[in-house]
Amino acid sequence: MIETPYLLFLGDAPDPLAAKVAQGIKDWRPEYAMGQLRLDGCRADMRIPDMTLAEAKEAGVKTVVIGVANRGGVISQTWKKVLVQALEEGFDLASGLHNLLRDEEDLAAVARATGRKLHDVRIPSVKYPIANGLRRTGKRCLAIGTDCSVGKMYTALCMEREMRERGMKATFRSTGQTGILITGDGVPLDAVIADFMAGAIEWLTPDNDSDHWDLIEGQGSLFHVSYSGVTLALIHGGQPDALILCHEPTRPHMRGLPDYKLPTLEALRDLGLELARVANPGCQVVGIAVNTQGLAEDAARSYLAEVEARMGLPATDPYRFGAGKLVDALDAL
Amino acid sequence: MIETPYLLFLGDAPDPLAAKVAQGIKDWRPEYAMGQLRLDGCRADMRIPDMTLAEAKEAGVKTVVIGVANRGGVISQTWKKVLVQALEEGFDLASGLHNLLRDEEDLAAVARATGRKLHDVRIPSVKYPIANGLRRTGKRCLAIGTDCSVGKMYTALCMEREMRERGMKATFRSTGQTGILITGDGVPLDAVIADFMAGAIEWLTPDNDSDHWDLIEGQGSLFHVSYSGVTLALIHGGQPDALILCHEPTRPHMRGLPDYKLPTLEALRDLGLELARVANPGCQVVGIAVNTQGLAEDAARSYLAEVEARMGLPATDPYRFGAGKLVDALDAL
Repeated sequence: MIETPYLLFLGDAPDPLAAKVAQGIKDWRPEYAMGQLRLDGCRADMRIPDMTLAEAKEAGVKTVVIGVANRGGVISQTWKKVLVQALEEGFDLASGLHNLLRDEEDLAAVARATGRKLHDVRIPSVKYPIANGLRRTGKRCLAIGTDCSVGKMYTALCMEREMRERGMKATFRSTGQTGILITGDGVPLDAVIADFMAGAIEWLTPDNDSDHWDLIEGQGSLFHVSYSGVTLALIHGGQPDALILCHEPTRPHMRGLPDYKLPTLEALRDLGLELARVANPGCQVVGIAVNTQGLAEDAARSYLAEVEARMGLPATDPYRFGAGKLVDALDAL
Repeated sequence: MIETPYLLFLGDAPDPLAAKVAQGIKDWRPEYAMGQLRLDGCRADMRIPDMTLAEAKEAGVKTVVIGVANRGGVISQTWKKVLVQALEEGFDLASGLHNLLRDEEDLAAVARATGRKLHDVRIPSVKYPIANGLRRTGKRCLAIGTDCSVGKMYTALCMEREMRERGMKATFRSTGQTGILITGDGVPLDAVIADFMAGAIEWLTPDNDSDHWDLIEGQGSLFHVSYSGVTLALIHGGQPDALILCHEPTRPHMRGLPDYKLPTLEALRDLGLELARVANPGCQVVGIAVNTQGLAEDAARSYLAEVEARMGLPATDPYRFGAGKLVDALDAL
């Protein structure tokens, strides 16, 4: 697969959220994240050493990973100059953008000339089936959100780490480019052909031991009009036994949609559960994961206490305060 | 575009539903449907003349249209023999199957050698945007179903015909291969990349006159786990002002999913409306279209009367009894 360690290319990321690919690698495989390369105007920072390509070479880096995602996924000319140079200096490139490295003529030509690899992890490498809706053995947990980018992937990764520490059988199932770059496999769901979305998720989460949990990475939101169809395919293909509700309490409106307000956690609970029970009548909402990075610790703790009391469900920020409560709830099912 | 008239190729269609492409052309453009070509085991019949390729040539046919859809869309070897012969005898081919004519080496080679055209209407020919959720001018009506293949396309086509007869501004917006073969354009939604589904529907139904109605062809069902994500993208990309509920009362289970029961019309109404109001808070359910082809006329009329009384909404079989009630309801909005 992709050769490690990495130099994380942050480009001219307009905000930290745009660099969530880099952040994910840094958080979940810190041993791969040797340094970062930022261009003028970059507003993201992984708090790891800034490196030139020459310095990265010196440090033993093998692959430059594009750690920044733009809406629509464009490889800009500003980036191109650095990426061409990276190939020329002997690095492979890896990317999860919609616009493929292999489709950029200059990059493809330089890669051929230098013998370097272009990894486009967003491209499905499997011919997925149409979903058949049959019940599968083993158990599945899916994180669904009030919005996009509210911490669904982190929630699943935190739960996997906690479950493995407890000796439980658990597998993080990636459905996006960051997760695929972190774990080395998964389904790039937003690049799958519409008819095969749910089938791709059935394929990703096959029959398993009765005490095994798949922790399926969520995507989009049922309430985000740009991506809601992807979310519903995850719910119906994943057949979750357990749902975790994910929320970011400081978001002023749906990401990228200034005219759309976030739904309440109650609305997400009711709609998510109704839709999930079409595929799995026994599905339960078991807990709430709040991304509290916009709150001070005291405010975060009191927000979580309020949510727990209001919803009657365990609530935590699994990245900040641990995923123990959520894993306890899964274990109790 | 595609040269007319057509010979409708029904292949070895396992049941009449599998030939809904041919049926659609025959019903909505009967002047194009010169004849049908059926293979051994074919269980569909358009009640138009059976023709050999030689007879079709004699009758002036220009294009052989593959009028049969298989689950997953496979071009079988049984079909291939006829299709190669058709190209050799001077017909173009048109298809809405997932497996493309152009990807079949033998067909592509014969088409090149004979100068004939291969029309794959399922392939998106446009780079669709990501949905932006902005409100558009003009009005939109979407048919949603308790299941797949319950008459959503026919409902929209019947309403368009009725509205045009009344002098109303109305455009059928096709989202599937049959509709595209009938009207010559549209979005082949089930072949669109997941991230762009809702955006494709926004593109298909742009700003329009304030008294213009788009009649958007529905796909799948919110309750059909194989395709529900496609349906939700239609609802959120289409921003419908009006929903029509579609139902087939004799269906024993969800199409292709023996373990899944159909939802009630009430469940479809409530879930469809809740989801539609995310994108368009003013959306209303205005009527019910029942596909009564499995019922005798008396039974159909009493079923419709019962549904009207129970749901408090106009109910008709628009193909059998006319779409007048549904158009009245739109007009009253």
